[in-house]
Amino acid sequence: MGKVRVAGFSLSVDGFGAGPEQSLEHPLGLGGPDLHKWFYPTRTFRSMIGQEGGTDDPFAHRAMEGFGAFIIGRNMFGPIRGAWPDEAWRGWWGDNPPYHAPTFVLTHHARAPLVMAGGTTFHFVTAGIEQALALARAAAGDLDIKIGGGVETIRHYLLAGVVDEIHLALAPVVLGRGEALLAGIDLPRLGYRVTEVVPTALATHLVLAR
Amino acid sequence: MGKVRVAGFSLSVDGFGAGPEQSLEHPLGLGGPDLHKWFYPTRTFRSMIGQEGGTDDPFAHRAMEGFGAFIIGRNMFGPIRGAWPDEAWRGWWGDNPPYHAPTFVLTHHARAPLVMAGGTTFHFVTAGIEQALALARAAAGDLDIKIGGGVETIRHYLLAGVVDEIHLALAPVVLGRGEALLAGIDLPRLGYRVTEVVPTALATHLVLAR
Repeated sequence: MGKVRVAGFSLSVDGFGAGPEQSLEHPLGLGGPDLHKWFYPTRTFRSMIGQEGGTDDPFAHRAMEGFGAFIIGRNMFGPIRGAWPDEAWRGWWGDNPPYHAPTFVLTHHARAPLVMAGGTTFHFVTAGIEQALALARAAAGDLDIKIGGGVETIRHYLLAGVVDEIHLALAPVVLGRGEALLAGIDLPRLGYRVTEVVPTALATHLVLAR
Repeated sequence: MGKVRVAGFSLSVDGFGAGPEQSLEHPLGLGGPDLHKWFYPTRTFRSMIGQEGGTDDPFAHRAMEGFGAFIIGRNMFGPIRGAWPDEAWRGWWGDNPPYHAPTFVLTHHARAPLVMAGGTTFHFVTAGIEQALALARAAAGDLDIKIGGGVETIRHYLLAGVVDEIHLALAPVVLGRGEALLAGIDLPRLGYRVTEVVPTALATHLVLAR
């Protein structure tokens, strides 16, 4: 059975995993893009947006490739809140999203699966995080499952005690406001210890495991 | 006039500047010593505890040397809470504390100044943070003033808008519980921006200034 992992998740010095006021214009919240400066120059990111070249960053590679399934929150899928007005919104990423695997979207509002190019199918799960994880495990087989985000989704899975490994990219920025990833979450008490630290100019990479 | 600086202040990934449950046995709180692993090998720290040798770390040097006055909170001076039972407690540091300058201790309980070896005199200030800063400025002349800590003291001075520069040593550790330095404090809104980032194996150093 594969691992359940948080990977490539960027965090500000003041603890925010996204800026405030997410919207169509600001998918990462205000100031959110600054969190990911380590990621933009990488080959992994550039291929996600259809560009060539880039740096070979092992943490970027580990953050996006080789997963058998993804789980993401409703807000990571899009800016729409409440019931789906129609089926026009198909994610932030265009026709070929960067997941290339079954991707389970947590939502309170049912919707038919959405088959995209490149191997990504969005499945909308209304029965909660345990159900989404069970479906992801069935889809992933022996491959790992990534809890993709956002902040609230990761917090739910951390507190449920089902995440095996967490890779955080600690960005040297302060956002001031936003979505706090670890507030009230005691990682050592949940059994996590630091297993890897790699400082770089654009982020310090930290891996925690249980 | 010198600057008012926070310097060499260590912070965990989950935002804590000290562990929980400070006591005589745990001056830095439970787990607190792990925050300062970057500091222990330095010549600056080793000389503070009467030892020779050590690494030449510019951030350690900047964190302790050249200040004209220090301001620290009552808990940083000692584990005693409430009224002073007597004058027996003379700080955590023995006869020759590492400050070597006038050091103003915020407290609600008056006490006569305490002259130590090596140039440190502890002055106990009961009239609040503005009064302590005024006294420190008078004592420091053209030299900088360090807001030494702990967490509550730094928070008070940040929110008062009088800190010119903040150097944080971001330690690759999670504490789970403790004293949160930045919770509810919006550094960008207070005018701070990142001016320096130096990643090292034991900590990522971040300087913010206004």
